[in-house]
Amino acid sequence: MSGEERYSDEPTRLAELVKVMFGDQALAYRSREATPSGRVRLLVGADSQDDCAVFGFSGEQQLVIGSDYVRGPKFRLYEYGLLGEYDLGYYLVAANVSDVAAMGAQPIGLLSVVRYPPEMSDSVFRQVMQGIRDACEAFGAPNVGGDIGGAERLILSATALGVCRPGGALLRSGAKTGDLVCLTAPTGMAGAAAAYFRSPRVCADIEQNYREELLSSWTRPLARTTEGVVLGNSGVVTSCQDTSDGLKATLESIAFSSGVGMTVFERELRIPEAVRKVCEYLNLEPLPVIMGDSVDFELVFTVSPVDCDRLRGEFERAGIDFHSIGVVVDGGEVVFEASSGKLSPLPGKAWRHTPESPPHH
Amino acid sequence: MSGEERYSDEPTRLAELVKVMFGDQALAYRSREATPSGRVRLLVGADSQDDCAVFGFSGEQQLVIGSDYVRGPKFRLYEYGLLGEYDLGYYLVAANVSDVAAMGAQPIGLLSVVRYPPEMSDSVFRQVMQGIRDACEAFGAPNVGGDIGGAERLILSATALGVCRPGGALLRSGAKTGDLVCLTAPTGMAGAAAAYFRSPRVCADIEQNYREELLSSWTRPLARTTEGVVLGNSGVVTSCQDTSDGLKATLESIAFSSGVGMTVFERELRIPEAVRKVCEYLNLEPLPVIMGDSVDFELVFTVSPVDCDRLRGEFERAGIDFHSIGVVVDGGEVVFEASSGKLSPLPGKAWRHTPESPPHH
Repeated sequence: MSGEERYSDEPTRLAELVKVMFGDQALAYRSREATPSGRVRLLVGADSQDDCAVFGFSGEQQLVIGSDYVRGPKFRLYEYGLLGEYDLGYYLVAANVSDVAAMGAQPIGLLSVVRYPPEMSDSVFRQVMQGIRDACEAFGAPNVGGDIGGAERLILSATALGVCRPGGALLRSGAKTGDLVCLTAPTGMAGAAAAYFRSPRVCADIEQNYREELLSSWTRPLARTTEGVVLGNSGVVTSCQDTSDGLKATLESIAFSSGVGMTVFERELRIPEAVRKVCEYLNLEPLPVIMGDSVDFELVFTVSPVDCDRLRGEFERAGIDFHSIGVVVDGGEVVFEASSGKLSPLPGKAWRHTPESPPHH
Repeated sequence: MSGEERYSDEPTRLAELVKVMFGDQALAYRSREATPSGRVRLLVGADSQDDCAVFGFSGEQQLVIGSDYVRGPKFRLYEYGLLGEYDLGYYLVAANVSDVAAMGAQPIGLLSVVRYPPEMSDSVFRQVMQGIRDACEAFGAPNVGGDIGGAERLILSATALGVCRPGGALLRSGAKTGDLVCLTAPTGMAGAAAAYFRSPRVCADIEQNYREELLSSWTRPLARTTEGVVLGNSGVVTSCQDTSDGLKATLESIAFSSGVGMTVFERELRIPEAVRKVCEYLNLEPLPVIMGDSVDFELVFTVSPVDCDRLRGEFERAGIDFHSIGVVVDGGEVVFEASSGKLSPLPGKAWRHTPESPPHH
């Protein structure tokens, strides 16, 4: 490094620094002696860079666990006064539980880290905690502990836990050529909301029900916990990840981890009506919005066409839904096939920034 | 609340707001249906306010889990240039693993949340992660995941996991009248270091070896993992907590949770030589330093006098040590017995601030 310092972005730091640094530690641990209470197996560690880590204990359950910080008071929509402290607490839980759902596990609990500024009154503090509490209730993962204390501003982080049957955790790495690429619901709402509410044109020029739908993607984000459990128990899903980095990044991540390519069909992509409205008003192309950095908590998963019908039956019985958006192909490329038949890279903002320049936030 | 806003301190927020808010959620969860992969029991939840939460799974192991944020770059010693980024990473792990040790569990892994400012170069970022890595190695808890990404400053939080045998978790609530109150090693070093290094008199007026010992309480804090496992496996320890809130707060917390009182004997308290030196130079009383808000990671535990000898044998075989500092008595008061025989409240800064004024940090 002598002399010139480099500034990597987040994916680069993960890939180049963290994976290398923690890979051998995970390996060493996998082969080490049992604890006094019996053997613990680390099945998925930091080197795997999946949504969560996975541990095997002595019994017939495996633990799935992941941590996520959320920007909270740094969300633009909070700065605009469109989100309150209750909403930030709620969002924290949804973002964390989504990672457990993406592993096909049943959420069982959450630890929250809430650091608050000295000027925060008890009633506002209680709103943060009430949002956490209500989201924990909604997603079936009780708050079991964590940390509260002071800081110069509100800081929110959490850890969600879940359980699955042995071998039941859904990784990013199992997609196979010929599999269908599926999505639990259309993406783009959170990104369209961010674009709409930061636009100087915000006024009464979009119907009230669309406004509410857009805003609720931030105030009441939905972690796909029922979908995750059905996917995990099905035994037929070959890979899964949530779309919290955007749909394009998720597809590329599954393809990269699985060593496969994908073809995504424009004709199968659904564009929510509210997203279409925002794009009309702001003169944006809808496809980059639904594929780009919209932070939705949908699940992308892969399943063979043969198993897909059975899975659809299980979804219908649980009152939930999914749709196919593409297929897994040989090679490492993720390609977009327009309705015209023209092939191109996936639309949407690039996930990886230039690694030579300081990261942007 | 109407009109006038209240500002509680951290312990009050925990006791008055969080416990009430999450208690019924934990209770509801304890009686709910099994997950698809089998029954999960929440044995210790947020309402217990212990060092960690405890889950029981299908097998013969229980999961112990806790989260701690550390102030990191807001540590005075970091602001003075006495701690580097590596040290902050190391400290983060020690603080978190200590909570698992305080439950008598074997650490098995750690998730770290590291958010970094845009101006942080790769080499400095790597130092943070290397400190985390090396501490994980030292305490036998591999880093298995977490979150990295941007923020306006370095933000550090983590979650540590451990396992223990069923019923083996050491709570704060089991101390019994007649038990001895024991401590794994003298406290006060971290507090003395903070006092010494912030003093304008810092110069060559304390021997170099004391300076190094003082500083190492912040650069290489020692989580008592071996002690924790021996205590947990002994089957005779009735309560345990780490001293990360200060010795006085820890004793009062165990006494309160257990519904007992304590008598702490001046003649049994040990004052580290470096702490004594600092107190001489700064004209401070040593007892408030070792009992006050010194953030050490020692373990306080209680054990009956009958079982204490056997426990001492187990400690000696493991090459570790503890000493007794008092006894558990009836009633709810924690009392200090001076060498003169005079009784008084415990020396040291009060843990609970005035709940009507904004908290201080």
